[in-house]
This record gives sequence, C-alpha cells and structure tokens, in this order.
Amino acid sequence: MLPFAAPVDDILWSLEFAGAARIPDWDGTLTAEITRHFAAFAQGRIAPLDEAGDRQGCRLHNGRVFMPDGFDAVFRDLADDGWLGLTAPEEFGGQGMGAAVQAATSEIFSGACHSLQMVTGLVPGAIRLLMHFGSADQQARFIPPLVSGDWLATMCLTEPGAGSDLSAIRTKAESTAQGWRVTGEKIFISGGDQNLSGNILHLVLARTGPDGTRDLGLFACPAVLADGVRNAVSVTRIEEKMGLHASPTCQMAFDSAQGELIGAPGQGLAAMFTLMNHARLDVALQGVAHAARAHAVASAYAAGRVQGRGADGQAVTLDQHADVRRMIDEADALALSARALTHSALVALETGNQALADFLTPVAKVCGSDAGTQAAELAVQVLGGYGYLHEYRVEQTYRDARICAIYEGANGIHAATLATRGLSHGGGVQADAFAAWIGQIADTLNGDILHDALREWTDLRGVTASAPRDIAPLFMQVTIALAELGFWLRVADDDATPVRICALAKGRCSLLPGQIAHLAAQARIMVQLAGGGA
Amino acid sequence: MLPFAAPVDDILWSLEFAGAARIPDWDGTLTAEITRHFAAFAQGRIAPLDEAGDRQGCRLHNGRVFMPDGFDAVFRDLADDGWLGLTAPEEFGGQGMGAAVQAATSEIFSGACHSLQMVTGLVPGAIRLLMHFGSADQQARFIPPLVSGDWLATMCLTEPGAGSDLSAIRTKAESTAQGWRVTGEKIFISGGDQNLSGNILHLVLARTGPDGTRDLGLFACPAVLADGVRNAVSVTRIEEKMGLHASPTCQMAFDSAQGELIGAPGQGLAAMFTLMNHARLDVALQGVAHAARAHAVASAYAAGRVQGRGADGQAVTLDQHADVRRMIDEADALALSARALTHSALVALETGNQALADFLTPVAKVCGSDAGTQAAELAVQVLGGYGYLHEYRVEQTYRDARICAIYEGANGIHAATLATRGLSHGGGVQADAFAAWIGQIADTLNGDILHDALREWTDLRGVTASAPRDIAPLFMQVTIALAELGFWLRVADDDATPVRICALAKGRCSLLPGQIAHLAAQARIMVQLAGGGA
Repeated sequence: MLPFAAPVDDILWSLEFAGAARIPDWDGTLTAEITRHFAAFAQGRIAPLDEAGDRQGCRLHNGRVFMPDGFDAVFRDLADDGWLGLTAPEEFGGQGMGAAVQAATSEIFSGACHSLQMVTGLVPGAIRLLMHFGSADQQARFIPPLVSGDWLATMCLTEPGAGSDLSAIRTKAESTAQGWRVTGEKIFISGGDQNLSGNILHLVLARTGPDGTRDLGLFACPAVLADGVRNAVSVTRIEEKMGLHASPTCQMAFDSAQGELIGAPGQGLAAMFTLMNHARLDVALQGVAHAARAHAVASAYAAGRVQGRGADGQAVTLDQHADVRRMIDEADALALSARALTHSALVALETGNQALADFLTPVAKVCGSDAGTQAAELAVQVLGGYGYLHEYRVEQTYRDARICAIYEGANGIHAATLATRGLSHGGGVQADAFAAWIGQIADTLNGDILHDALREWTDLRGVTASAPRDIAPLFMQVTIALAELGFWLRVADDDATPVRICALAKGRCSLLPGQIAHLAAQARIMVQLAGGGA
Repeated sequence: MLPFAAPVDDILWSLEFAGAARIPDWDGTLTAEITRHFAAFAQGRIAPLDEAGDRQGCRLHNGRVFMPDGFDAVFRDLADDGWLGLTAPEEFGGQGMGAAVQAATSEIFSGACHSLQMVTGLVPGAIRLLMHFGSADQQARFIPPLVSGDWLATMCLTEPGAGSDLSAIRTKAESTAQGWRVTGEKIFISGGDQNLSGNILHLVLARTGPDGTRDLGLFACPAVLADGVRNAVSVTRIEEKMGLHASPTCQMAFDSAQGELIGAPGQGLAAMFTLMNHARLDVALQGVAHAARAHAVASAYAAGRVQGRGADGQAVTLDQHADVRRMIDEADALALSARALTHSALVALETGNQALADFLTPVAKVCGSDAGTQAAELAVQVLGGYGYLHEYRVEQTYRDARICAIYEGANGIHAATLATRGLSHGGGVQADAFAAWIGQIADTLNGDILHDALREWTDLRGVTASAPRDIAPLFMQVTIALAELGFWLRVADDDATPVRICALAKGRCSLLPGQIAHLAAQARIMVQLAGGGA
C-alpha cells in the first residue's frame, strides 16, 4: 500500500495559477508554509487512520456514537495544534487565515481521511455562519469552543420526506416562554454524534410557520446544555453505507429540544446557504483529493509492475502500455483541472466577484465530485484484479469518492440550478460573468479555439434557457468542458507550468473543442426530441 | 428492498430479435418454458441468498473454504433439479439444451446472485472443453459428476507475475512414471475451494517446456483423487474484495499435484480459449444482469418517491423530473442494447459464422461489462443518499458489477485484441464479417444513417490498423456505438417491438451517430498526437 503523500506542490501551483494573489491579504509564502506543515500532520497522523477506520467503522451503543479506535487521539492533536480554528477570527482564538489556506488544508485532509474530515469539516462553515448571522453573545459563546475542539458542529437539513426539496421540511420550532423548542426527525446527519468533542453544535433547519421555504429558521441546538444536562437530541440509528465507514451518518430525533434562533425567523435558508456554498467547494475538493490519490496509486503501481513486452520484445512496465498510460494521464488531468476550477471559484468568491462565484460554485461541485469518481474508476482498472481487492485501497477510494456526487445537492440539482438561476437570475448576470471570464482568458491567449468554443456555449445558453429541464446536465457538462479548455490552453501557454502538466495540456486542448461541439449537438437534439414528444 | 424479478420477457424478446430462430434445433416455446421455470427457482431460492452472502462473506478455516450460510442447501436443489447439466450431452446425464437457453438462465442466475453464479458457472464451459479436447475416458469420468453437482470446476490461469500476459506463466507440469505432476502458484481462482460439491475439477494451465505460450498444456487436477485421498492442491488464502463477497477468490498452491493432460501438450491455450470465449459472453451477461437489476430498482424507487413539484405546482414522483427520467431510461437502454449485442454474438457462434462471432465476442464483453457499471452508477445517483446505503442494495450492484470489466481479460486487452487481431487476422476476415453484418442491417432498413456511420467506422478501421496501440479503446467504443445504432434502428423499424423499447430507440437513434462521429474524430486526433510526440 502506497503511503499517502499530500500533493502540496500541485495545490500551491494551482492556487497561484487561479489568481490567489489577487485575494486581499494573500501571502503566498505563509500559505506554502502552513500547507506543508499541515501535510506533515496529515501524512503522519491522519492518513494512518483511514484504512483501519474503513474496516472497523463506527458503532452506536446506548444511544452514543463511537468512532473507530485511534480517531480520538488524532482529533485531540488536531485541535491542540490549532487546525480547527485556522480561519476563525483571532479575537475568538482563531488564526484568521483566509479561504485559500483553508482550501489547501481541507483538500489534504480529505485525501488523508475523508471520513474524519467529514466529522470535523463543518467547523469553519459554522463559524462563518455565526459571524454573519449570530448575535455577539452567540459568537462569544459558540465560536471559542469550536476553535478549541471542545465542540464540533453539524448541519441538520435533510428529512425522510425532504431531500432535494427543502420546502417539504416538517421539523418545527415553537416559541415558548422558556425559549424555542425544536421537534422533528433529521436523516443523513454527518457526525450527529461522536466521542471526539465534549459537545456538538447542531445547526437545525426548522419550520416556524406553514409557508414553504420562507418560514424556515436556523436553530442552534447544543447536544449538551449550558447547565451540563443533555439536550433532547438523540441518535436513533447510524446508516450502513458503501463507503465512509468511519463517518457516522446519523438519523436523529429532536424531541422538544432547546434551541436558539440564529438570525431572524425566515432567514434559515439564507443562513444555511452561507454554510453550504463553502461546503460545496469543500465537496469539490474532496472529489479532487480522491482523484489525486487515485492517480498517485495507479501511477506508482503501473510504474512498478512488469507486464508484457514492448515493440522491441523487451519486458515493459504496465505504464508503458499506451492504454494504461492514457488511463493514468486521464486521472491526473481530472484532478488538475477540477482543482483549478474549484480554486477559480474560490478566488472569485474571495475577490468579491459574486456573480462569477455563484456560477462557478455548482460547476466546481459537479466537476470535482465527478473527477473523484472517474479517476477512482480508472485507477481500479489500471490495477486490474488488484484494484478490486482491499489491499491497494483504490477500491476504498472508489467507494468513498462516490458520495460526493450525491450530497451537498445531488449533481443533477446543481445542473438544474445552473440551467435556471445561473442563466436567468438578475437578467443573466451570473452567466454573463462566466462568459466574460472565459472571454478574458481567450483574449489573453489570443485563443481562437477558446473564442469558438465560447460562441458554441453562448449559443447553447440560449437553447438551454428555453428548455432547462431537459438539457441541464448536458449544459453543465459543456460548461465544465469550456472552463477546462480555458484552463488547459492557459497551461499550454504558460512558461512557468510544470512539464508534466504541460504534457497533459497538449492532449486536452486537442480533444476538448470536439467534446464541447458534440455535447452541444446532443443538447440540441434532446431539445428537439422533448419538443417532438410533447 | 425490491425483490429480484428476472427480466424474462426482455430476454426472450432479445433472443428472438437477435435471430435465435436461425440456430439449429431452436425451439422458442421450450426456451421460454425453461427460462420461466428457472426464473421461478432463481427468484424463490437463489436471490434471497444475495444480500446475506454479501454481508457474511466466505471464510477460510483449516485450509478449507466455507460459503455463507444457506448456499449449500440451494446448491443441492440447483443440482438436483438438473440445472448444472442443462447444456451437457444427454449421454452423460445432461439435458442437451443449446447455448441460447444457457444464456437466458445464466443471465438470470447472475442477476439473482452473481457470487453463486461465479462458483457454479464454469460447469457448462468445462463440459464443452472436455467434449472438444478430452478423451472418451476423461469424458466418461468427469462429465457425469459435473452434471450431478458432485463436482464443480475451476479455471486456473492467473499467477502473481502473469495476469494479462499468459506467456509469463511459471506453473510447471512434469511427466513422471506415475503420470503428470503440477507445481506452482495460482491466484484469483474463483471457487478454488467451497463446501458445496464433494470434489472440484481444477483445470490448470501449466508449462511443459520453456517456450512462451506454445509450451502450455491444460491439466485436470481433481481436488480429491480417485482413491479418496486429497490431491496436493491447497488454498493459501482468500482475497478481501470490494464486492462478490460470497464468491471465494482463492490463492492456490499446487505442490506436485497429480494431473491429467487434457488434449495434447501445447494445446493448453487453445483448450482454455474454448472455455474462455463462452465465459466472456457469460461475463457480458453478468454485466447485463446488473444493468437490468439497477434499472429495475431505480425505476421502482423513482416511481414511488414523491419529491418536488411539477410545472403546474402539483407534487410529482421522482421519475417525473426530466433528469431522473433520463438516468432511468439510460440504464434501461444500456441493459437492452448490451443484451442484444451479446445475443447477436451468441447467434453468430451457434450458426457457424465464426468470423463474426470472433469479432463480436470481445465487443460484447466490453459492452456488457461497461453497461453493468454504468447502469449501477446511474441507479446510485437516482436513489441519491439512499443509493449510498446498503438498504436498497444498488450499492451492492455497484460493487459487484465492477469486476466484470476486469476479469476474463481486462477491457483494455479486449480493445487491443479487436484493434489488432480483429482487424488483421486472415486479412481482416473478422472485421469484414462485422462490416457485412452491419451492412445487411442497413440494407434491410434502407438506413442511410447506418450506412453513413458504417462508412465512418470503415474509415476509422484503416486509421486504427496503422496505430492500434494508441486508439484501441476508442475504436472499441466506436464499434460498440455502431452495433448499438444498428440495434436501435432495427427496433424503431420493427412493429413487434414492445412500446417501452421503441420509445427508448427514438432518443438513441438521434444521439448515436453524433457519438460515433465524435469518438472517431477523437481517435484521429490521438493518432496525430501520438505521431507528433514520437
């Protein structure tokens, strides 16, 4: 089994390439230093948990959840070394680092152990949410223990009858003389309980009135109340899953649990989306982490295994077979372009280009999560029979990565969002921002291919706006391919790009325009078919 | 959990559509009767083993392998009802049925429990091999116990250093005064031991001299010798796999084991390929079985789950969302076209069109195995979070189906075979037979689209012949798409086709020509890139 090695150089290069230097207060040297520091911790402490965690899994005993052996000790060190408060404001004990540093460490964390990252990964988002919507008193009470790791946080949205449709949420919050009381059932809650932190801040979306998504409020329900008594929040079961065995996915019952309103009633969805937009980029980076890991394992395996003979009759290693080389390079390219796209979304967000950030966030979520699954699929095939065994652990990557296309909004929902809101909101301001972004890249490069592909996309944008339901996923794929093309053309044009990445660019720049044209043609045919069938 | 329902009607329709009536001694009524009879057994007895088998798995204890609970009783009934000898000659106690009946029951078996099918599924192939290469004495000794289920069979090819490259096989067979003695290590042997049958006929590829694949012989090594003593064959471990937990994948040691030569020395590969060509169609049908099962589960789930609202504001079921509908239909189409293609290969084989059969066999293997993985992937996405849980068992389909693209020749190897031997052997006789087959379909339909696509393929055939290593997988994909297009055009043109299948044909016939053109263009670019990079 190949030990986990964080792709630090690739990450740092990608951040620079995506324009992180334009983020206010950016410090490239400090970012590199922190990233390398965290990589050492992840390689030495976190990664060794991953295989054993997959085998042992979590268990529910007497209503409490227990993580696999060894997770608690590593979590304690993670917290003590200050990693949970990396982006928290310094006034609350955090280190005040920016989102780019967070992205770098978060990806490495997911690559080392996606399961543990799931359980701890909501802390930065919860702190951001409290900074935006919480009162000064709530910030003072909740943020310091989140920074110290005395508390962790959950996001409680999904219910048995309300998955992708949040207007169907039934959990209700009632105002009483003693404060708000929350009652209902939530499912698919990551880290709904665990034995790592003494307390948990459950952030619960609950209904304060009958009106669809407008009467939803966000409530903070601590697992343990200020007086030390346990709140009426319980885990009723943990799910048996294909992967992420060391991340407890909980079914939870809130039985008149004490809660505090965060922000105003009716602000629930807005508050949740503060948390979710960053969570989506985090999911994209989980996918990227799996893709990079799949590439690393496949690449090392194929370089070491002698199989068959070359044209000259000499024995060759597996990676000298053209088709195996193609699979390895494709996994590499998937990781690199999905990372670059996610970093681009992050830079847009952090530099105040909100329209572009809104457009790129679902694109990055789909691109990153699909990259993880596809690269794992390729790596399993490169390893052949060994890919199907536990031994080399690409099969774990294959199982763990698969969730990313489902949670934080199923990929089909993101495609629908892009094809509706992304094209129509504010008269199309998001799509305009994306077109302008690609256009600028094309101008910089004097890139005819990219201008042509952009025209194709613009044409398809019009078609999509008239029939978003039918071709949303195809429009998403064309958008991803266009963004990728821009990336690879820039790579090919850039003298400072590492040689390995330049070599991949040659193939991609040749293939992507054809792919865009093909997908766009498919989309047009599907619109005709849908029209003809009506 | 949706109980397993064998897709009997689809299978019978597909066999007729693929021209099974042209097979000598074909009896459609009898085929239907036997298929329905087996479906009832599979649904009632075999399918209930599948979930429990996945959870419990096999275990190795004191050198012997134990199947999960309940497998032995079902196996005994399977044997007693005569299903193991379905295609065996009547003179040896079999029922003398043809390959089409075998294909129908084999697919149903795999859909009910792929793991048990793995352990028993080699019997028909072993009998066929003995009929071709065995002596009359060997046939008389080995076939009756295989028919009765007193024995099962294994195929022992792969070694630690010899996966896709059989010329590297090191297991050796030495001729002694007491007969042949076989010594060596074999890996990835399905059913290398089990507690179902009293004996096992191991068919072992072993070296009788130093010369590559020419000095390979095929040896029959029974686990228990005629005198009741155990042969020097042992299981040294069983592998831990992503899926197929109820199929023991064994690492085996042959330590001067007694063996009998089947056929002549040097005929080992030829004999093994007799077994493997049918095994490959069996693997294609395993993929088809998974695809059909994935479609059935996704379709039933989506029809039953209310989520979101339609354009009129009314609550709708999941399958009324355009993108979910697309995913369900795609899974359905994958199963139908892969099944039709595999049945076409079988009909070619059984009607003596050997050149077409040779060309279509690797195409069916890749198409069927990929269909299984892709449909499972779609079904997981349709079920969303529930798709990731054990509960609905699409995640088991996702794990179990994945092996099909790896074993019986990794899909990349089949693509390479098609792009080399398939195009060049006998002056291109196989590829000519394929082109003639598609051409006939096109003529029957007066199908301009298909003629155009065939011209595109013929052009690519020339390009591929000059650079097979670089574009073999793309050539394979174009070939599959062309065969699929022929299928869907015939479906659309046929009055007797079920309505559901006709509806799918409309979309496929519109999309496939563009896909062929796109893939072919990619292939041409890749040849240029490879040439430019040399």
